[in-house]
Formats: sequence, C-alpha cells, structure tokens
Amino acid sequence: MASIVIVFHSGYGHTRKQAEAVHAGAAAAAGAQVESLAIDAEGNLPDGSWNKLAAADAIVFGAPTYMGGPSWQFKKFADASAKPWSGQAWKNKVAAGFTNSATINGDKFSTISYMFTLAMQQAMIWVGTGLMPANVKASTRNDVNWLGGFGGTLAQSPADVGADEGPLPVDLETARLFGARVAETALRFKRGA
Amino acid sequence: MASIVIVFHSGYGHTRKQAEAVHAGAAAAAGAQVESLAIDAEGNLPDGSWNKLAAADAIVFGAPTYMGGPSWQFKKFADASAKPWSGQAWKNKVAAGFTNSATINGDKFSTISYMFTLAMQQAMIWVGTGLMPANVKASTRNDVNWLGGFGGTLAQSPADVGADEGPLPVDLETARLFGARVAETALRFKRGA
Amino acid sequence: MASIVIVFHSGYGHTRKQAEAVHAGAAAAAGAQVESLAIDAEGNLPDGSWNKLAAADAIVFGAPTYMGGPSWQFKKFADASAKPWSGQAWKNKVAAGFTNSATINGDKFSTISYMFTLAMQQAMIWVGTGLMPANVKASTRNDVNWLGGFGGTLAQSPADVGADEGPLPVDLETARLFGARVAETALRFKRGA
Amino acid sequence: MASIVIVFHSGYGHTRKQAEAVHAGAAAAAGAQVESLAIDAEGNLPDGSWNKLAAADAIVFGAPTYMGGPSWQFKKFADASAKPWSGQAWKNKVAAGFTNSATINGDKFSTISYMFTLAMQQAMIWVGTGLMPANVKASTRNDVNWLGGFGGTLAQSPADVGADEGPLPVDLETARLFGARVAETALRFKRGA
Repeated sequence: MASIVIVFHSGYGHTRKQAEAVHAGAAAAAGAQVESLAIDAEGNLPDGSWNKLAAADAIVFGAPTYMGGPSWQFKKFADASAKPWSGQAWKNKVAAGFTNSATINGDKFSTISYMFTLAMQQAMIWVGTGLMPANVKASTRNDVNWLGGFGGTLAQSPADVGADEGPLPVDLETARLFGARVAETALRFKRGA
Repeated sequence: MASIVIVFHSGYGHTRKQAEAVHAGAAAAAGAQVESLAIDAEGNLPDGSWNKLAAADAIVFGAPTYMGGPSWQFKKFADASAKPWSGQAWKNKVAAGFTNSATINGDKFSTISYMFTLAMQQAMIWVGTGLMPANVKASTRNDVNWLGGFGGTLAQSPADVGADEGPLPVDLETARLFGARVAETALRFKRGA
Repeated sequence: MASIVIVFHSGYGHTRKQAEAVHAGAAAAAGAQVESLAIDAEGNLPDGSWNKLAAADAIVFGAPTYMGGPSWQFKKFADASAKPWSGQAWKNKVAAGFTNSATINGDKFSTISYMFTLAMQQAMIWVGTGLMPANVKASTRNDVNWLGGFGGTLAQSPADVGADEGPLPVDLETARLFGARVAETALRFKRGA
Repeated sequence: MASIVIVFHSGYGHTRKQAEAVHAGAAAAAGAQVESLAIDAEGNLPDGSWNKLAAADAIVFGAPTYMGGPSWQFKKFADASAKPWSGQAWKNKVAAGFTNSATINGDKFSTISYMFTLAMQQAMIWVGTGLMPANVKASTRNDVNWLGGFGGTLAQSPADVGADEGPLPVDLETARLFGARVAETALRFKRGA
C-alpha cells in the first residue's frame, strides 16, 4: 500500500476539478490510498492535515497559476511547510505538481518550477507527467497533453469560463493519467524501501 | 524627475534593511523621488499604495526567499496586482527586484525569477544589478556582489542572526549600488519618453 | 537613431522566419536600423558580427527550443559572449528574446528564461512582449499572442511541418509587434542617455 | 544491482573533479555499478556511450555553469538526446544533476533547472541533494552544502584557480554524499520495479 496526499488550492473551482481527476487517476491504481486536502481562501489547511502529510508516501501539489506563479494561498502553505522541512520530515516522499490557468502557455512552467524547488528543499523525489506532447499538424485540443507539460501537469480554462466548463475534458484525462503515474511511482518506491 | 516605489515584504526585518539600502541608493540620484511601501504580515499594503504604484516610473520588488520562493505575503500583493494588470497600468514602468535569505545560494534565483515573470506579465522593463561578481581566489564576504546576483540583488543573513546583525554591511552596499542603478535607469527611460 | 541586432539560430528555418518577422517589425520603426546575424550549424557567427554586436543599442536573441532549452548552437554563441562580458561591453544595451518549438507549451519558458539570465549577466535592460494574452473562450489560434508569451515572444510550428507552413501567420504577426516594441524601447532608451 | 552513468562536460577540469567525487560516492554503495562518460570539447561522447545510457538505471548530468547555463557542449549532448526521447528510452530512469562555477551564487540554479527540464522531457524521476544547508552564523566554507544546493549539487571554484585547487574539498565531499544518495535512490527504485 502507498498513501498519496493531494494538497491543492483552487480559487474558482477549475483547479479543484483538476485535483479530482488526479485523485481519480491515483485511486484507480491497485494499492493506492488517496486523500485530497484543500487549502482554503485564507491559505489554511483542514485540521489534521499536517499529520496526514507527514504520514504520506507521496504528496502532489496543485495550484492555479496567478500572475506567473502559484496562488498566494498555496505559497502560504509552502511557507508553513518550513516546519516539517526543519526536521526533514518529508524526505524521500514522492512529489509531483499540477496547475491550471487561463492562458495557454502563460507561465505555467513557472508554477511547476516553483513546486519542484519546494520539493527539492524538502528532499523529495520528483515525478513528472511521463507523457509525450501532441505536437504534430493533426494534433488538436482534444489530445492528451496537447499543452505539452513534462515537469508537471497543465490544464487550461479560458478566463471567462466557469468550473462547469473548464478545464477541457482532455485536460482532466491528462490529469488522470498523471495521477496514475504518481501512484505507480509511489508504489514502486515504497516496495523498494 | 522620476518616481521610484519600492514595494517589499520583510518577515523579521532583514529584508527591510535591504529595502532601506535600495531606497538610500536610489534617493541619492539627482532627480529621483523614492517611496517605500511595506507589505504587512497579512500581505496587505498601506492605504493609498495602489495609487502610488500607478503613478510610479519604476517599481522595485523586494521579498525574503522562503521555501524556495518569495514570501506568501509578497505573492498576495502580486496576485492583487491582477487589477492593474487587466488594464496594463504598469506598462513600460521600470522594474527590478531584490531578496534576502539565510542560505548562501539557496534558491534566491527562484525568487528573482518569479519577480521577473511578474514584471513581464505587467509589460514592464527589467533592470538587474549591472554588477560583476567577486569570484576570484582573493574574494571575501566583504566584496560587493560576493553572492553573484545579476537579475536582482541578493543578500544573506544567517538563520540565527537578528536584523541587527544581518544582512552583512557589504550586502547593504550592494543594495545601495543597485538602488542607484534602478534610479539612473528610470531617469534615463523617463527622459527618453 | 538606434541600432538593433537580431542574433539567432534556426535549425530548420522556422525560427528564421520568426527572426525575419521580428526584423520587419523593428525596421518599420522610424529611426531604427536593424541587422540580423544568423548563427550557423556549428554555432558560429559571420565575420564581423562581434563588432556589430558591440556597436548595437539593442540585441535580440532568438533560438528554437530543443529538449527544453535553446539550441546548443545558440548556447555556443552565449558562451562565446564571455569575452564582451569580461569587459561589460554590452552593459545597458536593450535585450529581448524569442523562441519557436513544436510543442504548444513545451518548455519555451525555459528558453526565454535562459536568454534573460544571459542578458542579466551582460548587464542589459530586458524588454518583453508587452502583449496581453488571447485567453478567453472565443480565442483561437489566429489571435495575437494566443500562446501567451510575456518575457519573450513564442511561436509554434508542428513537428511535421516545414518552414513553408510554420510558424502560423499569427505567430509571425506577434513577432512583428514584438520587434516594434523592442525598437521603440531601444529608441526611447537611447534618447534618454 | 543498479547501474549509474554519469555523463558530464568539464571545460578546465573542475567539473571533472566534481564528477569523480559523485562517482566515488555512488560506487561506494553496495550494489551500485558506476560509469562516467566525458563529453569532449566538441560536445561529443565516446563510442558506445548511447548504449550505456540506454542500459542505465540512473543518469547523472554534470556541466559547468557558463554564462548562466550549462556549457554548450553539454547542451549539444542534450539536443542529441532527442533520439532516445523520441522512443522514451530513458523513461523511469532516475536522474540528477551537478554543476560548478566560479561565482558563489551565479546562476547555478539556472543550470540545475535546465537539467531537470531535460529529465522531465525524458520522463525520468528526479532526485536532488537531500542535504540541509549550512546557513547559521557559525557556518563556514568548510561545511557540507555551504552553498545551499537542493535540486542539484553545487560547487564553486574561483575564476583564477586551476583544477588542482578547486573545487574546495568540502564541495567534493558534498558531491560524494550526493553520489551516495543517487545510488541509494536508484537501487531502491530498481528493487521496487
């Protein structure tokens, strides 16, 4: 068994849907136990969250990309993780990340890059999407990984679209595949301990 | 005349001292008018700040590096800047950034990189330190830019040292030189309008 | 008058087309003198290039994104720029960057980020696209800055499409607008000297 | 048994010494088989290298930081890895990186960040230093990880010092500890397969 905790912030519900897809993808893996923790509008976690994070085999970070980086609420959580960091409590846990934003490219790389930087300070092991991009002439917005995310999973939701319409179904499918990969990696890493 | 606004967050006072040195360096330039705005512990600015930012010729961003990126309070300010962004109100202002952290290298690059990303979304013009590094055998911690910051100005304050002892005097001198460069760039850019 | 030099590498011709569009956009600005220098397949520049770079008011970097960063030929040029760097010969020149790749998102940010890092070591002043993204529901691949580049200009050419078909016309229009912005910034910065 | 291949470029011998220390650290782990492949001055690998890379359980990237990124010779190798990439031949191998440069901070983060970006395109699993930084008042240049590298291992060699004098002994010790961590991670990941 490997336990996977998804810790995410969602401002308007789009990133929440992405988180749910990651959750579903991870939970489908035999032997994976998945829990999602939502960071609230004030940047705080539900009671008991830090203990769950401490007990996890893998932690998946999720946040919208706002103004070129993860939302401040996610960053508040990251700053608060200085406490487990000081004791290296997350060392050798598997880590991964995902983000949603309105703009197609739009600095999503910056958000994933920050999540990786955080994970490295925490001495974690990083796993990305493991997905090839859909980048030929015949590719469309209905292809898995059409955005071309590697370090983490990307989704796009137009700025004028509610969470009922975005992210695109294929971005949720991409998130599911990513969730499955995180679970497999966590299981493999746990078995090897 | 060019007006320069320094907007910064400081958690324990070290980054405040760095901000003051940037302020002093900029204010010494003939024709520069400088104001500093401190982001508080809740990530908010003093009343009237957004108008001052809107009227500035240059905006200098400052934050400590916490867990591999700018403090969440700074990020909250950055997220709130989506409002001027939507009207491109900061377009063609000069931008620059500085950061302090306990670790010598310690992902300060990540913080400066984020500030640059923010400034680019805001359609600003970025100026760095313009300083050569002190990187020969005879170099010491008393040399200007001993840390080797280029995109933005770096300072180091050991984790167990209060703001009375950190950052090092030379890091404050580096910050002063950087403030002067920002002011000169802002003045030049304004004259050329 | 301001002189702008575009220094770029193109592997298969797509980035060359992008460079030509940047060139056209810059050359259309009154008072701008533009020259393009192509880095060859061995990473070398035509004779006399370094003098032209030394004399420029602005230098625009261009390269395809290969395997998550600028092509090695561009990097060879960048490494060779250690010589002007040692004398800070490019200090206060305006700098900017553009990149083309097959994947929609695909780590183009990484390439622009590298070009910025290079420019900062060179003590240059960086200007980005100054373009809002096309990120609403009605947006299409025919809208200026549909990819959402801010720090630098982005283009996409499917992996199975020759330079006769890619980048998309709109990516070339985006490049033209970017070229105009670089020229205006260089002119303004020169006037203000 | 897990096989670890270190593929590195060294311009003047400093990064080679760092590579040797990583090698020694990895080779000391029971069950680890280590081989180092040096990229030459033209950016090429010895005959048979690509087969060795294909067979490896872990690949460690090493390069000096020149002008804010990995040397062009390393980038030439990275570009050539588009071939294994196209068949995802390195998928699920463990990856890691190290760099040396003259400047203390000096954009080493940028090089490690690039190596990570490459590894993610290659669908690899990334492991960092797992080391706490030496960042208190009593810290000196003789402390492990005094530079504070997390995503990858950092070393500093003053610009006027030959490979007989640089990197510092402690940077080589840091590299050894990192090599050990890479080996342990590769072994664990292999056992778990």
